[in-house]
Amino acid sequence: MPNAHVQTNSDQRIDRYPSRVATVSEVIERQDPVLYRHWSKGAPLSRSDCEYYQSNGFVFLEEFFESDEVAASQVETERLAQDITIVGRDETITEPGSRTVRSIFDIHDLSPVFSTFAKGARMADIARFLLDDDVYLHQSRLNYKPGFRGKEFYWHSDFETWHVEDGMPRMRAVSMSITLSENNEFNGPLILIPASHYSYLTCVGRTPEDHYKQSLKKQDYGIPDDDSLANLVSRGGLVAPKGGPGSLIIFDCNTMHGSNGNISPFPRRNAFFVYNALSNRLAPPYAGTKPRPDFIAHRDPSPFPSND
Amino acid sequence: MPNAHVQTNSDQRIDRYPSRVATVSEVIERQDPVLYRHWSKGAPLSRSDCEYYQSNGFVFLEEFFESDEVAASQVETERLAQDITIVGRDETITEPGSRTVRSIFDIHDLSPVFSTFAKGARMADIARFLLDDDVYLHQSRLNYKPGFRGKEFYWHSDFETWHVEDGMPRMRAVSMSITLSENNEFNGPLILIPASHYSYLTCVGRTPEDHYKQSLKKQDYGIPDDDSLANLVSRGGLVAPKGGPGSLIIFDCNTMHGSNGNISPFPRRNAFFVYNALSNRLAPPYAGTKPRPDFIAHRDPSPFPSND
Repeated sequence: MPNAHVQTNSDQRIDRYPSRVATVSEVIERQDPVLYRHWSKGAPLSRSDCEYYQSNGFVFLEEFFESDEVAASQVETERLAQDITIVGRDETITEPGSRTVRSIFDIHDLSPVFSTFAKGARMADIARFLLDDDVYLHQSRLNYKPGFRGKEFYWHSDFETWHVEDGMPRMRAVSMSITLSENNEFNGPLILIPASHYSYLTCVGRTPEDHYKQSLKKQDYGIPDDDSLANLVSRGGLVAPKGGPGSLIIFDCNTMHGSNGNISPFPRRNAFFVYNALSNRLAPPYAGTKPRPDFIAHRDPSPFPSND
Repeated sequence: MPNAHVQTNSDQRIDRYPSRVATVSEVIERQDPVLYRHWSKGAPLSRSDCEYYQSNGFVFLEEFFESDEVAASQVETERLAQDITIVGRDETITEPGSRTVRSIFDIHDLSPVFSTFAKGARMADIARFLLDDDVYLHQSRLNYKPGFRGKEFYWHSDFETWHVEDGMPRMRAVSMSITLSENNEFNGPLILIPASHYSYLTCVGRTPEDHYKQSLKKQDYGIPDDDSLANLVSRGGLVAPKGGPGSLIIFDCNTMHGSNGNISPFPRRNAFFVYNALSNRLAPPYAGTKPRPDFIAHRDPSPFPSND
């Protein structure tokens, strides 16, 4: 597909998704498939779920996990937030201006419970199917969004950051968000813009070194502009999947999403696992900055066997 | 009703609702009626709406206003936010850390459109009925909650502030919030705690002088504690009325309410009018501070004739 936006990077690499390089934002059409394999009988998603995912960039599977799996994850989520050896680590991000835990990264390395969960067949099989490749965990995290004072996550395409700051070459990764508490209209549920995965919104502003130290609390670069966001929403609308614990939201790496804050007393706990295709492993960051730490973006992956 | 909490103020007045005076918060049972008059035929609210209001502390009336009234108010709302003679005034509050208009106060004095609206029979008759008295406007405002970056309004009982900072003696006032844009699940709609109007949560922390200059952007005093809020919600739940422009939310002065921020592209515009009973006009502030300006709390009211 011809693409006027393909640029040659400072290190002579081709960059199909240049962002944070120009002074005005623009929209680049997606250069990659959404579904890398056609649906066939025996696929780990139904045909209609696949079609919904292809069109909308996400699919919501309510009550996907068994209640005992969910209960074990809930206990582990609360244990990690109380574990002083965890809370002091770089992997733990606090809310802006507070010591309340906002996110813990790399939970598949920190916790045997989440390692088993993430590498188990149910999610990994879906990822392998959608991406038609072996997969590995690019990133994992718990988002705590505490009651009363949980702050918003502003609109972003994960891929924009992973491409610019981590060097993920193509759109061949999928995110799985698991609800560990009820996600309701009051506690800042994930909001997705349907069909936004077809459009790559470039952002303005150069990426500073060590941007992640601030951006994981509150992002200042890689932020899409108002007009482009309004345009995406006018075409696709907004959807906030809501449901009890143990539901699964599968979304493409370029689907625009965010969430409002949470003044309700109900914490919104979600676990988040990103599966990347092995063929799409990280190159040097396209921003030319030094790579972010491994706990945010794994650079030396071990794929899971597909028949575990 | 015997009340262990009645205190004598520094100026020897009886204070039935002392707040911001102790180092721990407590819950004081409501000392006043909710409905000051029994329902009878010809009342400006249906019997079931009255009963709902009595039990829950609010009632939501969808599509209450005619579309031409709403359209005129919408035009006026946008005009005021663009009017540089308005935007520079004390009556105009900007979002924290930004120059975006958050609220404009005293709109019934600033704007003939809103004066007519507020003093018209439809809302005023309801207020007179609920409070069984002549009424006047204690406060009016437009809340703009802009798209993308509208900030939350944290939980509060309006009465707590009006009592402590303005000297409103008793719970005999009613608020009317009119939706001027769609209020939906994404743009930070008003959230109310049903039945919270029966409990007065005292707050800790002395009120500083000129507190309003900061509190109208982001409140730091008069904030209920987490446990008391969680307790109210565990009993009453949460309700966020949603609907198109021209709907009316009527709520008691002591009903606990708040709203989340707004990352959606949809602004949430609401007009807000507070009717106080003439017999409940303001005394000196119970905090002992100097009164807030007239544009926030009218001290020299002119009641409306009841048959205009």
